[in-house]
Parts: sequence; structure tokens; C-alpha cells
Amino acid sequence: MPYNELRKDYLLNRWVVIATERSRRPTDFAKQKAETTQTTVCPMCVGNENMTPPAVMLYLKENGEINVTQDPSAGERPKNWLIRVIPNLYPAFSPPKQTEDTAQILKSECFGDAIGGHEVIVESPNHDEDPADAELPQLELVIHTYIDRLRELSAKPYVKYVSIFRNFGKEAGASLSHVHSQVIATPIVPPLVQEELEASKKYHYENRKCVFCDIIEREAKGSRLIDESPDFVVFAPYASINPMEFWIVPKRHAANILDLDNAEVAAFARTLKLSLKALKEVVNDPPYNYGLHLAINEEAKDHYHWHLEVYPKLSIWAGFELNTGIYINTVTPEIAAESLRKAIKPKFFP
Amino acid sequence: MPYNELRKDYLLNRWVVIATERSRRPTDFAKQKAETTQTTVCPMCVGNENMTPPAVMLYLKENGEINVTQDPSAGERPKNWLIRVIPNLYPAFSPPKQTEDTAQILKSECFGDAIGGHEVIVESPNHDEDPADAELPQLELVIHTYIDRLRELSAKPYVKYVSIFRNFGKEAGASLSHVHSQVIATPIVPPLVQEELEASKKYHYENRKCVFCDIIEREAKGSRLIDESPDFVVFAPYASINPMEFWIVPKRHAANILDLDNAEVAAFARTLKLSLKALKEVVNDPPYNYGLHLAINEEAKDHYHWHLEVYPKLSIWAGFELNTGIYINTVTPEIAAESLRKAIKPKFFP
Repeated sequence: MPYNELRKDYLLNRWVVIATERSRRPTDFAKQKAETTQTTVCPMCVGNENMTPPAVMLYLKENGEINVTQDPSAGERPKNWLIRVIPNLYPAFSPPKQTEDTAQILKSECFGDAIGGHEVIVESPNHDEDPADAELPQLELVIHTYIDRLRELSAKPYVKYVSIFRNFGKEAGASLSHVHSQVIATPIVPPLVQEELEASKKYHYENRKCVFCDIIEREAKGSRLIDESPDFVVFAPYASINPMEFWIVPKRHAANILDLDNAEVAAFARTLKLSLKALKEVVNDPPYNYGLHLAINEEAKDHYHWHLEVYPKLSIWAGFELNTGIYINTVTPEIAAESLRKAIKPKFFP
Repeated sequence: MPYNELRKDYLLNRWVVIATERSRRPTDFAKQKAETTQTTVCPMCVGNENMTPPAVMLYLKENGEINVTQDPSAGERPKNWLIRVIPNLYPAFSPPKQTEDTAQILKSECFGDAIGGHEVIVESPNHDEDPADAELPQLELVIHTYIDRLRELSAKPYVKYVSIFRNFGKEAGASLSHVHSQVIATPIVPPLVQEELEASKKYHYENRKCVFCDIIEREAKGSRLIDESPDFVVFAPYASINPMEFWIVPKRHAANILDLDNAEVAAFARTLKLSLKALKEVVNDPPYNYGLHLAINEEAKDHYHWHLEVYPKLSIWAGFELNTGIYINTVTPEIAAESLRKAIKPKFFP
């Protein structure tokens, strides 16, 4: 099976995976609506493990204990799992064949094989245990899984970045409704990440400070603050491009999540749950996408600062946005923050 | 009434209009579906001119002749129009107040008033006369209107760019179904345009040639060609980020559409119609966005080359795309081109 192709735009620093592995014919789109309707049997529910590939990692409940299995024996599909990480059936990025020279991923400046990885994290045996309603211990396991997959994938010589994200709701691109996140490892540093890395490096050089540390200090005082706890700040960013957008940023400076301790994982899970629950209440359970922003290159550790960006899917980017890169947001971040702050407040110290 | 705010991201060269003029409350989104359903009375149809502001420009049919009125008397709303250009009721960008110092639009590096313009071009008195099915003389009038509005708006001292685009179908952001395009004039050069300008300038400096002239020469020979006529080349771009995406590029080098002659306007209208009709047939009348890419700064005339980019709305950009700037396209441009080429062929010389 050939790799998907990774191609760069003629002019822009904009990359696309031409996904031949799940290639579609133009006429397939007429049937698209039918394809995405929910099937009666969920391939991610307990008991249906044979409908998906064997897991690459499992959190298992065994004799009252929780054990993680990093590399389950091929073919085994135990049913006593709490978290199940499986390969994506139609991966956008795939691991290299053994014979491949992984030092030379890009075949030219604007073309390469889409080498990397693409996994699905089944977040719970319970079909509907979304973060907004999840039991905190289960949500902590999800965060631990993010850390585990980042550790494993970022160590591979052909991986330059690991994107960990969640699509919730059909309008936000979730084709299956069982709670899940995705992990994609890429052979290039993505353009948006690269731009963040360069801008934060420049800021650090000029100010001898982390730009994100300065941002949370400023936003924690202002009208865009949503929640603040000893470990995290939640706010609607100054130039939110999505209505009701918010970011969760840790107070402790760190470029990525690899060295979070258990208390920080618990605090992150709690903050994630409270803020997503507030969003669900204020906007009637909207579809959303969230993604971790992080750096895995050692050089970025002083100037980059990991965080999570949550983008509710409440508007359509159309001809203007797509052709200019300027966005129109009809909910001011200040109003978004106010409504989320009010919704989150009563549960501030549960 | 205050201006909308134009804000830049903390780190990225990414701008957003915080649209206070059409500001929404977070709870409005629960009602969104009902809002966008079609009303029984179309405010853009003939006879309903009083439902929209007076036009800023009209093409009128008078005594068998077609006359353009660049600045109709305020308040007049004649019914014998062929094209009607009206101010957007909820403009993203607005003209400056007379007292405003237009030399100083941006109040800081990352903030300013959203000064500019926002107009709607009603493309035909006939509700459904979409480009794919339009009479060619009418479609030529639409192109002439694009040229007229670009000429008028780009001459204003506070305008740095004019985006002309079309949203077709509710899923592509069209809130009204009557055939229309939009024009937005901005006080900054948009990031995507800026990136194209810089990359094409660099290419021109290094190669003494226009990069787009080279692109169409290459694509006209290859598997991504869709249509070629004496004046235009239509192809699926190498790194298409949308399924079935195609670009219409003029063979004659020009930075924008201001000096198109009547024959070129007719050829453009014909190419636009044939290619959109092919798309409609191949993919079952999909929603799409198209946008003109052009340069209005004199300095760009040798290295920039205007063209139209058509983005069918057939996939959802989700957590991965939004957080990395890498796209996943499940239809290869080569397959897209083949299917559109076959659909367009029989009508090549009508």
C-alpha cells in the first residue's frame, strides 16, 4: 500500500495530505449524508473490540487495579479496558516501512510521503462519557493517555510533531459518536506550530520572558478571564477567531505535558471538565474541536508554553475567511468570557 | 455606532474582526438553525427593493439599453435593475466617518477599527440564476460589476485590499439563497494575500519570471488540467486543500482584473460557467466558496497574477487542521481534474 502524499502549496507555507488510503471518487459525495448517520452497532463499545484493530495501548482494570499495557500482544482484544488506543483505520499519516530511510522524509521541498502515525483514543467504555460529564478519575486517565502517546510517538526519529485533538459532534467532524480523541504524528513541524514557535522565540529573545507567561498574567486580570485556579488559567483569547473560543493555559511554564505530575493531571482534568461543562450549558451542547499546542524540540523549552485551545463550532468560515485569512467573530471574547465565567462560578470549589 | 474591532492574534499573523455591529449573545446559537431557514419573501427579489438599503451601484435596463449608475440618488430604488449592489446590513468593515484621520487606521500593532467596506452584489433579478446556469450576458455583467467595485473601492485611501467572493449554499455560509456575491474592502493586506505577495516576489526576483505564469505552463501539460482556452487555464492545484478544488487562471499576466477588456470578460464568464456547471454535475450541486486573488499595489504588477480559487465545501476542517494548518484531502487533485475534465469536454466549443 503506498503512502499518502504530503504536498506543499505553490506559494504558501500550507501543507496538505492527499489521502489516497481513504481516497474517494467525486461521486461519493452525493452519498455523504447517509454515510455519516449513526450506525446501530458502535465499534468502540465494549464487546465490539473485534470491529477495530488490536490496541496499541490499553488501560486495563484488573483485580481492582488499573494497569497500563504499552504494547499488547498482537491480536489480543481484552474487554476489561478503561482506555483503548487503536490505530486509525484510514490513517492520514503512517509509520515508515522498516527499510525506509527515515532520515530523509521529504523527497523535495514541496513533496514527501505522509509518514508518521494516526491513532484513536477511545476515552471510556461508556459511549457517552464526554469530558463535560465524565467521572474525574476517568478523565485523568485520558490525560495520562495523552502524555503516554506523546512520549512514545515524539521519541520516534521520523516524528517532528504530535497533534493531540478532539472532535465533538458531527458538525465538528466527529464521524463516530463514542467518546474519543485522536493523535496524529507528523514528519514536519506544522505551519501554525512553526509560526507560534518563531513568534514566541522572538518575544523571549527581546523580553527575556515567555510570551504565554505574560499573556496569562494579563488575561487573569481582565474581562476575558473565565476561571483561575492554583494551576490553570482559562480565558477567552483577545483575538478569538471562533465564537465562545477559550484556552486553558497552565501557570507553571512547560513546553509540553511530558513532565506533568499526578496533581497537575488531576487539576487539568478538573479544569477541562468544568469549562467544557460551562460551554455545554451556555450554548446548548455545541459541537467543538480542541487541540493541544505544545513543543517537543528541546530548543523551545524556555520560550514555548503548552496549552489547550477549544474552538466551538458555531460559525462557518466562508469565502472571505478562506481567501484572506481574516476571520469574522460575532461574539466578542469579553461577552463569551462573561457568560462562561458565570456558568463556571458556582462549581469553582466543589 | 462604534466600529467593529480588528484584532491580531497574540503570536500569529492572524486577524479577526470582532463584529460588535452584529454582536450575538452566546445563547443566540441555540436558535441558529431556525434563523437560517429560508424566508418566504426574498429581500433581493425584484419588487422587494424596500427591504434592503438603497443601492450604491446599479446596472439598469432602460429602453433596451443597459446603463450603469455608479452613485444612484439616495433613497431611489428603481425596479428595472439587472445588477444591484447594496451595502451589507451588518457590515464587517465600514467606511470611516468624515472626521477620521484615515492615514492612521491601526491604533496599535495588534488593534484597529475595522474600517473599509462591505457590499452585496445581487447578481440577477432571477432568484436562481447561479453562474452554472446563468445566461452569459448576465454573468458578464457580474464580472463587470466585480471590476467596477474593485476600481471604486481600491481607490480609497484607507483601503489596502478588496476581497471579492461568492458563498453558494447554506453549508458554505450563504444565509440568503438569492444569487449574490460579496465585496469586502480591508484596511490591512490580509495575511494569506501577504504571503502570496511575498512568495511570488521572491520567485520573480530569483527567476525573473512570474510564478503563476510558470504554474499554468506546467499544469496545462499535466494530469491536473481541467480546461484550456485561448484566454484561461482551469486546473486542480497540486496541493488542493479541498476535495474538487479548482483554480481559473488567465493566460495574460495581470495583477488584477481592472484592465480586462470586454472579450476577456466574456471569456472569463464562459470559463466560470462551464467549470461551475461541471462541478455541479459531477458532485450533485455542492455548496462552494470562490474568491478572487489579486493585487492592487502597483509594486506587485510584475510578480503577482490574478486568479479565481473555487473551494467546494465537501469536508469539515476539524481539530487537526485547525490546530496545525495541515489539511487532509480525500480526493486527489488528479482524480478531481479527470472527472471535471470529462464533464466539461463536450461543451468545450459550444
